[in-house]
Amino acid sequence: MAAWVLPDHIADVLPSEARHIEELRRLCLDTARGYGYELVMPPLLEHTESLLSAVGSPQDLQTFKMVDQLSGRSLGLRIDTTPQVARIDAHLLNRNAVTRLCYCGPVVHTLPASPYATREPLQFGAEIYGHTGLEADLEILQLALQSLLTAGLKDFHVDLSDARILHALLQGHTLSPELSAAITDALAHKNVSAMRELGQQLPSSLTKALLALVQMYGDISVVAHARQEFSAWPKVLHALEQIEWLASHVKHPVSIDLADLRGFAYYSGPRFSVFVPETSDALARGGRYDEVGAVFGRKRPAAGFSLDIKVLVGLLPHPQPQAAIRAPWGEDETLSHTIAQLRSQGHTVVCLLPGHESEVDEFHCDRELIQDRGVWTVRLLNTN
Amino acid sequence: MAAWVLPDHIADVLPSEARHIEELRRLCLDTARGYGYELVMPPLLEHTESLLSAVGSPQDLQTFKMVDQLSGRSLGLRIDTTPQVARIDAHLLNRNAVTRLCYCGPVVHTLPASPYATREPLQFGAEIYGHTGLEADLEILQLALQSLLTAGLKDFHVDLSDARILHALLQGHTLSPELSAAITDALAHKNVSAMRELGQQLPSSLTKALLALVQMYGDISVVAHARQEFSAWPKVLHALEQIEWLASHVKHPVSIDLADLRGFAYYSGPRFSVFVPETSDALARGGRYDEVGAVFGRKRPAAGFSLDIKVLVGLLPHPQPQAAIRAPWGEDETLSHTIAQLRSQGHTVVCLLPGHESEVDEFHCDRELIQDRGVWTVRLLNTN
Repeated sequence: MAAWVLPDHIADVLPSEARHIEELRRLCLDTARGYGYELVMPPLLEHTESLLSAVGSPQDLQTFKMVDQLSGRSLGLRIDTTPQVARIDAHLLNRNAVTRLCYCGPVVHTLPASPYATREPLQFGAEIYGHTGLEADLEILQLALQSLLTAGLKDFHVDLSDARILHALLQGHTLSPELSAAITDALAHKNVSAMRELGQQLPSSLTKALLALVQMYGDISVVAHARQEFSAWPKVLHALEQIEWLASHVKHPVSIDLADLRGFAYYSGPRFSVFVPETSDALARGGRYDEVGAVFGRKRPAAGFSLDIKVLVGLLPHPQPQAAIRAPWGEDETLSHTIAQLRSQGHTVVCLLPGHESEVDEFHCDRELIQDRGVWTVRLLNTN
Repeated sequence: MAAWVLPDHIADVLPSEARHIEELRRLCLDTARGYGYELVMPPLLEHTESLLSAVGSPQDLQTFKMVDQLSGRSLGLRIDTTPQVARIDAHLLNRNAVTRLCYCGPVVHTLPASPYATREPLQFGAEIYGHTGLEADLEILQLALQSLLTAGLKDFHVDLSDARILHALLQGHTLSPELSAAITDALAHKNVSAMRELGQQLPSSLTKALLALVQMYGDISVVAHARQEFSAWPKVLHALEQIEWLASHVKHPVSIDLADLRGFAYYSGPRFSVFVPETSDALARGGRYDEVGAVFGRKRPAAGFSLDIKVLVGLLPHPQPQAAIRAPWGEDETLSHTIAQLRSQGHTVVCLLPGHESEVDEFHCDRELIQDRGVWTVRLLNTN
């Protein structure tokens, strides 16, 4: 195969899109900074155990593995940055106060998440540690939404759920790992008939509850409906109350999807997903994951979210190409000085190298630097 | 071993340094954009053959390898971005005109380049394709220096060399790969006695030339000295003339090191290295590498440079921590509105979550948002 063929689901990002991604990256990081989130940069690769113990074994197959020539140990490429940030909070910063951290960098998956997904998403996210109250969940949700708004996205809605609901319903029941996985799968795919079939292996009260849960999605009225259906489970009622509080503080369309279990397995409380009409998978996911630091020996209350900037960029119109100034090449000191000054003012100045004067430039040059009665002057170009 | 222990020569970047790295990243990319260099983002991993055929087999041991679950083929993590950008120029853009490209992203090495080096540098670089003249070499050199200046570096000097000099001296001699490698090694380490010993296996005229070459470093007068010494090699004289032209166009201290062969093996013409007094290894390297796209079937004139932003950040004083505004948490609409407005103006506003009011904040809060006669007002804090 030719040397320039890339692996499937791996691609170069070419100039117009790359510049837009870079802009979105800056907007997202600056939005997080505005909320007081400090930037961290965890490494791309770690010991496999560190990466996997944190996110649970279903992620094992998603992780590229390599051998460390220095130690002979197995290294993995990160598939998610959240566990790494939890490690930083637990061991490197080791603060007792509320800590807000954000990050933006590539993650790598052995298998694409969907038929058109890249295996190298650019993950942006933020995490808040040290506060158990819903104020932290709300701040994370608001930051996620503000990041999307700042990026220029308009038409999106928020799905709310809570990881404790299924957990509460299953409490006291001993299920085989296979049965557990089948239940999770039926919920994730909203598969009522599969759930009905699984019910034959379960107590009838649990079957009834799970069959209700799998259909618990829609507008905010679902919460009232769930409150009646799950009145026997105080923990579920508590989770519903928190969902309602969060929903009342969001200024965007909210829907409820109590069976939503997609994304990473570490959620332990309220969860949210942001959807746009164009896509079936969530654009951003977040919520509470108080257990995420446990493997690093210092469990702290934690909430956070993440999104893939490469997905985000595909949902937005490309910005206008940046206009540039065309300049001749020359050794004249006044020319060099003028060009340097224009560049320091933020202009792009492209020098036409000798012999290339008649080439069509790839940059959109709408102005030209010319010498007019001995003075270097920027003149507008006739462009169509 | 504990789950939070990172592999050797792999590290987290914590907030104060991470923010500085992000600032330098932006400054470097914006400087390149000012010169008309378009951003591209090649992938972190490719088929091993694509990565290695381009940079030559000595880099094989430097490349982490993985198995692609989709194809069963071997994938490698990039150790250098230049060959990828050459591939993009050759196959994706496929322009005939002068093309200017830049990039900034991680590269990964199996072994650290030096006892204190990271195995995950953050490589920033730029490449110009399609122009054979020295104007392209000069533009690349000037962009490299301007990037360092913009980053805040002051005290550096430029070493000039040319890959064609050794090539011209060796032309017509058939040497074993071992002998070739030993000569390269002696030159790279300026090892006169090793070169004298190797000379016993070489014709005396070549020995004399190589012994001269290994000592050809110092100020610009080295060029005149080399011109006398190598007067029998027209190609060397041509290279010296080009070095002299480049040196005359650089406004920073220039020294000459004709035996400099460090860095990647793809150089084919004038080369430069930028040094600071603090470090023995070059901070930035660049030059002409017209052959770099050959493996992708479309050889174009090419010049470029790269540097590691993680090394650069270590040479600069950390910027002052960004000051922030402390705000109470509350559901008051006017409070939320005021905070949103301050953030949209570029301020960092940290909300004190309920119960954490007395915590020492990690952000440097020099102002506070308070309600004064019903109006939310920013007040200066007494900070020491």
